[in-house]
Amino acid sequence: MRSFEYYTPTRVIFGKDAHLQVGTLLKEYGCKKVLIHYGSKSAEASGLLDEVKKSLTDAKVEFVTLGGVVPNPRLSKVREGIDLCRRENVDFLLAVGGGSVIDSCKAIGYGCANPWTDVWNFFLKTETPTACLPVGVILTIAATGSEMSNSSVITNEDGWLKRGCVKTDLCRPRFALLNPQLTCTLPQYQTESGCVDILMHTMERYFVNAETMELTDSISESLMQTVIYNARILMKDPLNYDARAEVMWAGSLSHNGLTGCGTGGGDWACHQLEHELGGMFDVAHGAGLAAIWGSWARYVYQENPERFAQFATNVFDIPCGTDFEKTALAGIEAMEDFFRSVEMPTSIGELGLTLTDAQIQELAFKCSFEDTRTIGTFRRLNRKDMEKIYHSAL
Amino acid sequence: MRSFEYYTPTRVIFGKDAHLQVGTLLKEYGCKKVLIHYGSKSAEASGLLDEVKKSLTDAKVEFVTLGGVVPNPRLSKVREGIDLCRRENVDFLLAVGGGSVIDSCKAIGYGCANPWTDVWNFFLKTETPTACLPVGVILTIAATGSEMSNSSVITNEDGWLKRGCVKTDLCRPRFALLNPQLTCTLPQYQTESGCVDILMHTMERYFVNAETMELTDSISESLMQTVIYNARILMKDPLNYDARAEVMWAGSLSHNGLTGCGTGGGDWACHQLEHELGGMFDVAHGAGLAAIWGSWARYVYQENPERFAQFATNVFDIPCGTDFEKTALAGIEAMEDFFRSVEMPTSIGELGLTLTDAQIQELAFKCSFEDTRTIGTFRRLNRKDMEKIYHSAL
Repeated sequence: MRSFEYYTPTRVIFGKDAHLQVGTLLKEYGCKKVLIHYGSKSAEASGLLDEVKKSLTDAKVEFVTLGGVVPNPRLSKVREGIDLCRRENVDFLLAVGGGSVIDSCKAIGYGCANPWTDVWNFFLKTETPTACLPVGVILTIAATGSEMSNSSVITNEDGWLKRGCVKTDLCRPRFALLNPQLTCTLPQYQTESGCVDILMHTMERYFVNAETMELTDSISESLMQTVIYNARILMKDPLNYDARAEVMWAGSLSHNGLTGCGTGGGDWACHQLEHELGGMFDVAHGAGLAAIWGSWARYVYQENPERFAQFATNVFDIPCGTDFEKTALAGIEAMEDFFRSVEMPTSIGELGLTLTDAQIQELAFKCSFEDTRTIGTFRRLNRKDMEKIYHSAL
Repeated sequence: MRSFEYYTPTRVIFGKDAHLQVGTLLKEYGCKKVLIHYGSKSAEASGLLDEVKKSLTDAKVEFVTLGGVVPNPRLSKVREGIDLCRRENVDFLLAVGGGSVIDSCKAIGYGCANPWTDVWNFFLKTETPTACLPVGVILTIAATGSEMSNSSVITNEDGWLKRGCVKTDLCRPRFALLNPQLTCTLPQYQTESGCVDILMHTMERYFVNAETMELTDSISESLMQTVIYNARILMKDPLNYDARAEVMWAGSLSHNGLTGCGTGGGDWACHQLEHELGGMFDVAHGAGLAAIWGSWARYVYQENPERFAQFATNVFDIPCGTDFEKTALAGIEAMEDFFRSVEMPTSIGELGLTLTDAQIQELAFKCSFEDTRTIGTFRRLNRKDMEKIYHSAL
């Protein structure tokens, strides 16, 4: 049994109209002036931003706004946010959106609170932040789990490098207002892409080639079954509040550390392979993960077929005899069948991309940090392995 | 789907030798002088206290000690702790023990930080605390989940009233050092009594007569299965580290709020019925719960047999046809069989107590706050109902 640390200080308020508490909450935290950070026009068009501003005004909390965060959020927007916050003496950051907006907020928070260096250094991991402006969240997409996590992923347009920050508890949001209603109007593709991302956060902690904790395994299997079940419901009934709620809460729990207790850190190879794809082509994160996962799984499962067989049996109710390899492959197929059932891609081609050999080499070169690192722990993958996985995912 | 709040700010460090980090941690929290609060002589005899003191000395953290906390911890000891902390200018409280010691620490913390009133008023719920000295925990018994919870239960010797404090996040421990090794030397009766307590914390949130959250249900069922499985292992192999670890982590998760998300608060009737028993006769809390649960369950299950049938099927793999009542009763029987398999009582008689009618009336009178309140939500229970349950549990 591995030792572990578990720390999830984010205060979660979950339910209908939860976001309307934002003004009162910020006041409670002593906030004087907050940055409302958001992405698409839909936050404006839906009236959500107006509701937020009204709540802040009612609570006598000053604010400035910065919209325009895009998926795979950009370093240039982060820099714009840092400048704005310094100029306006902002003391709290409010993300109104999904993972991209939250991650952008966290990066702005690091930038503001560590003026001694350039914020990108935290993503190059050449420096470690020592502070962060407090972040609060009003979540509009269930996907990345960033609302309770200690991570942030930003894309630097200079070279299209997508990189995760040094992980510290400093950036864990102080509060997360989770109202499943806010996700009801999401397009199907985004909803299902989010469900894949949630599953992947659990799977990447689950597929470790080492002893784990029964309780964590069992919680992870519960979580995966819940997401799969409700993702299918949302294909037919996107306004189903309960299904939205199940998925939203699963999203937070899948990435707040709970599913990693005793598993020793997980294997993040799929995420890392997808990050390069997302950095280069701007694909939806979850869809990119779905496109790669099957190829990754078939490339690595023989290292520990029993683990994949457990997954097949406990998540998909596939009977397991003594032929673990057969059961393992059936489990991988079942997950891909699920991806297809919610119209997610199971190949890079289905993402609408036709990669050349040169592009594959470039992706692997970047993902291996110019051939200086391996990724993954279930099976350690070098640059050549990465190329093979990208190839078989075509 | 019910709205909910979830807030678990306790930093958990889990694994072998976790407790040796205590000095460094307290230093990190800025502690100048800590109270080491503990219970039995075994903390002294085992060398644990010496290890703690050495860690504090190495980190240059001053300390005073106060031992002698008993199961069903006493108000007089709390008052002694408050006086000592004031006299010694203690700024942090360290519980080295199980639920009784932690709860005593929390009460001392409330008493020290709210000099404007008497601490017992927080347990009478006539006043609400506005602050609490910070509490840290080195856990030696997996049972109450107090190491991550917002609750504290104290017994007032004046009338032998056992009462839970007003619940506030103020008393949630700042950190919990969870080393399963420290529980390996516990007597079987205490180990298994702890397992029952853990199960009950989950069951009392699970048995609600309302719509719940699939994900929470599924996590709760995972947790119950894990505890049942490992409690049985510990009957034969008490030194099994992995089984100790599973139970210990289950204990923290069962009472930190996770198993209550979306279930609307739970039904705490069994705990309340047991509190009176524990206040009057000083029985081991978990054993007292085991003695009462079956009688409670049979008294209430007809309000919602489907819920008990779900429990039977998902926790004990009992096939469920259309006869929910039959499946429900089989599930109750299966849980009692489990209690018997780990030598826990399923009646008050097996606790070694022979109650008179007058005593039953007194217990119910106290539990109903002199006939002024009902308890429970699955089925609301008045004083007469309580008497009947105590009777059938004889």
